[in-house]
Amino acid sequence: MRSFFILLVSVFILCSLTIQAQQNDEQMLKRIHDEALAHGQAYGWLETLCRNYPGRIAGSDIYIKAAEHTLSLVKTIRNVNGYLQECEANYWDRGDKEEAHIKAADGTKSPLNVLALGNSVRTPENGITAEIIEVHTLDEVQRLGREKIEGKIVFYNRPMNPTFVETFEAYGDAVDQRTRGPYEAAQYGAVAAMVRSVSLFQSDYPHTGVTGYRDTIHRIPAIAISTNDANRLSKLLSEQKVEGYIKTNCHMVGPRYAPNVIGEIKGSTHPDEIILVGGHLDSWDNTAGAHDDGAGVVQSIEVLRILTEIGYKPKRTIRCVLFSNEENGLAGGKEYARVSNENNEFHLFAIESDAGGFTPRGFVFEADKEVLRPYMEKLSQWEPLLENYGLLFKEGYSGADVHPLLSQKGLLGGLMPDSQRYFEIHHAANDTIDKVNPRELELGAAAMASLIYLIDQHGLK
Amino acid sequence: MRSFFILLVSVFILCSLTIQAQQNDEQMLKRIHDEALAHGQAYGWLETLCRNYPGRIAGSDIYIKAAEHTLSLVKTIRNVNGYLQECEANYWDRGDKEEAHIKAADGTKSPLNVLALGNSVRTPENGITAEIIEVHTLDEVQRLGREKIEGKIVFYNRPMNPTFVETFEAYGDAVDQRTRGPYEAAQYGAVAAMVRSVSLFQSDYPHTGVTGYRDTIHRIPAIAISTNDANRLSKLLSEQKVEGYIKTNCHMVGPRYAPNVIGEIKGSTHPDEIILVGGHLDSWDNTAGAHDDGAGVVQSIEVLRILTEIGYKPKRTIRCVLFSNEENGLAGGKEYARVSNENNEFHLFAIESDAGGFTPRGFVFEADKEVLRPYMEKLSQWEPLLENYGLLFKEGYSGADVHPLLSQKGLLGGLMPDSQRYFEIHHAANDTIDKVNPRELELGAAAMASLIYLIDQHGLK
Repeated sequence: MRSFFILLVSVFILCSLTIQAQQNDEQMLKRIHDEALAHGQAYGWLETLCRNYPGRIAGSDIYIKAAEHTLSLVKTIRNVNGYLQECEANYWDRGDKEEAHIKAADGTKSPLNVLALGNSVRTPENGITAEIIEVHTLDEVQRLGREKIEGKIVFYNRPMNPTFVETFEAYGDAVDQRTRGPYEAAQYGAVAAMVRSVSLFQSDYPHTGVTGYRDTIHRIPAIAISTNDANRLSKLLSEQKVEGYIKTNCHMVGPRYAPNVIGEIKGSTHPDEIILVGGHLDSWDNTAGAHDDGAGVVQSIEVLRILTEIGYKPKRTIRCVLFSNEENGLAGGKEYARVSNENNEFHLFAIESDAGGFTPRGFVFEADKEVLRPYMEKLSQWEPLLENYGLLFKEGYSGADVHPLLSQKGLLGGLMPDSQRYFEIHHAANDTIDKVNPRELELGAAAMASLIYLIDQHGLK
Repeated sequence: MRSFFILLVSVFILCSLTIQAQQNDEQMLKRIHDEALAHGQAYGWLETLCRNYPGRIAGSDIYIKAAEHTLSLVKTIRNVNGYLQECEANYWDRGDKEEAHIKAADGTKSPLNVLALGNSVRTPENGITAEIIEVHTLDEVQRLGREKIEGKIVFYNRPMNPTFVETFEAYGDAVDQRTRGPYEAAQYGAVAAMVRSVSLFQSDYPHTGVTGYRDTIHRIPAIAISTNDANRLSKLLSEQKVEGYIKTNCHMVGPRYAPNVIGEIKGSTHPDEIILVGGHLDSWDNTAGAHDDGAGVVQSIEVLRILTEIGYKPKRTIRCVLFSNEENGLAGGKEYARVSNENNEFHLFAIESDAGGFTPRGFVFEADKEVLRPYMEKLSQWEPLLENYGLLFKEGYSGADVHPLLSQKGLLGGLMPDSQRYFEIHHAANDTIDKVNPRELELGAAAMASLIYLIDQHGLK
């Protein structure tokens, strides 16, 4: 009877403690959101970043200034140790603005809104003039073969599929034209490539992005053209032969200093377990990079600020990392992981925000196969808490900068914002501060701070 | 043994049919979304509505033109019977643009960005000049009493509380200053009221909205002032006495023709059960009303178009209703319900879109207490299907136009879009088409079409 009584009391105490812990978590999440929504700093920081450090491609002078600026910002937060992490990135320089036009059968010329693709080679001094051939897939280029492709400008014109509700799926479905299309066309003797901007919207803005060559021989100049121009050109091509002219001035300069920016709060009881929150500091050279990825940068710093401001003392080390060179080389993410592995670090959790500063809809998680199940089970207990804020969990790719940490067998995550507007501004000159809503941006920071709080407080075991 | 075999076969057939029905539903929801995202018309329609029919306050000439235009739009959809429903609304006329300024103790005058509140009375010909007193709640006015309030301009300056994640909760929490504040101040002898714009953002745009008087005696002129001006004025008032000048030219003209617009597809097997989808056609006179509620208007018409375009033949009558006078009298919703009751109609389901054309997050439902439980249980079986599209269900207030149908004991619903950006543009001149994203708008239409399809197909019993 007595042992039964002891059991009963133990169960009661255990239940009370669990309920108490849950209430504490609820209150902490509320405090995090209140701080973000009532006193958020992320939007103001983003305004400054966009205004003073636009076009901060890795290796450029403005990138280094942006790194120094964000480092000083990180250091304004109490108890944060801020420093630059040495890193070299291949600097690609656009040179003078590119030009392109098309010439109809009757000789009429009309200019195109274009941008050289990132990492692309330049045209000869007097440009490239050749007949344009429209294709829709890389397979089509193979099928057409050297006979049809040789000596031509290959025009990839498969639009993003609008019927994907999640627009990143549509991006994944269309982006091979840009990343691999020029190289593929070069295999069959194309002299240049023009790629329809990977955007879901009709506009005059060309959207750049990286392209890749797999060898040193098949490197042809490659440009993005606006969706409006792509439609216009396609219509013309359906009626007649069209000649294209392309002149680009870009070239790969080579390795340059392009540091990662790091700010960390040392953990009180498990300092060796690192929780990372990050975004990438570099942007394309043609844009202020407000959503891509200024948003992720300021949200990551804001996570440190919010946790500090509400007086939270983390058990684990919380580290904010602003990565270099995500756009055209991933040098920052790779170097960060290399150094981390060299130092035998363990990242219990690393989350990246690189999908825009829109209303957060949840998180995506990945981990090494061995450890994913137990992590997801542990996470699932917090789903009800985060559902209160409209946040859901799913499995999938975390993000390009944190992915190299996979081998440490911690949990990797990505913030998953509403994706409808992202491909209106992605890699284009209209990715500006006025496209960002302060509350949406702050809610993303609060979402990450909430999850980081829970993982720091309760671990992942 | 034989009967067991028959039972087994029956169970198998039943299971197959259920799985089949579920697959059909899944496919239909996919077809609805594909049609919306690949061939949507809502954005183009909204552009025209905003460009050609801005400021369509009920009773105005432009309102009638907007009604005729949207009727013709409804009639372009195959098998839709379109007509106007007679309705009269009290027309309120702003007259010449209002003016206001403040005068500091040293005599310096500075103008304010203001708008008369809807349904407000006008000032005398030479305006109202009086000392300004700042308050934050209606209770505070009571507490201050006649001694402090009499002869003054009462300035309500309680900001929306930014810590509500759902911004409509913050609106509900702050809007009494506008709807009841002026009347309350008049009780204590105030000569006019100035209300901080009910917006979550700092800007120079004043946001109007309706105010109400409960008797014919205590009617004082009332204006909204921009959040920037409210902060500036508050700062000045903390240092010194400030005199205000207000001149408004608005007045209530009286009843005028302001029809509802209706388009319906007759049901094939249950024509007497009506499923309504609607928004309100009227807007405030100072705005194009893109989100409020042009979005709801075009989404409601789009629901008819999508269902028709994918070849769906509804069992029940699907009726699109564009209501009149939601902003300042609700004459359209009330008259619609009156006529419907008179004709012994039954609305099985009535859903309204009046919370902006942003990414849909789900639906809110209400019904008479007697019937809400069974409806919610029936609905719950479709939650997994709609969760695929990020749509959740919750209970709450449906919408001002469909609410009068509550007594018919059908189900009432409201589309629940993401609410972060709404109170940046609500009732202000910046509620323009460029604030609307075509995909977000279409997803709202697809969400409503999906739910309507499910209810039409399976009923609510």
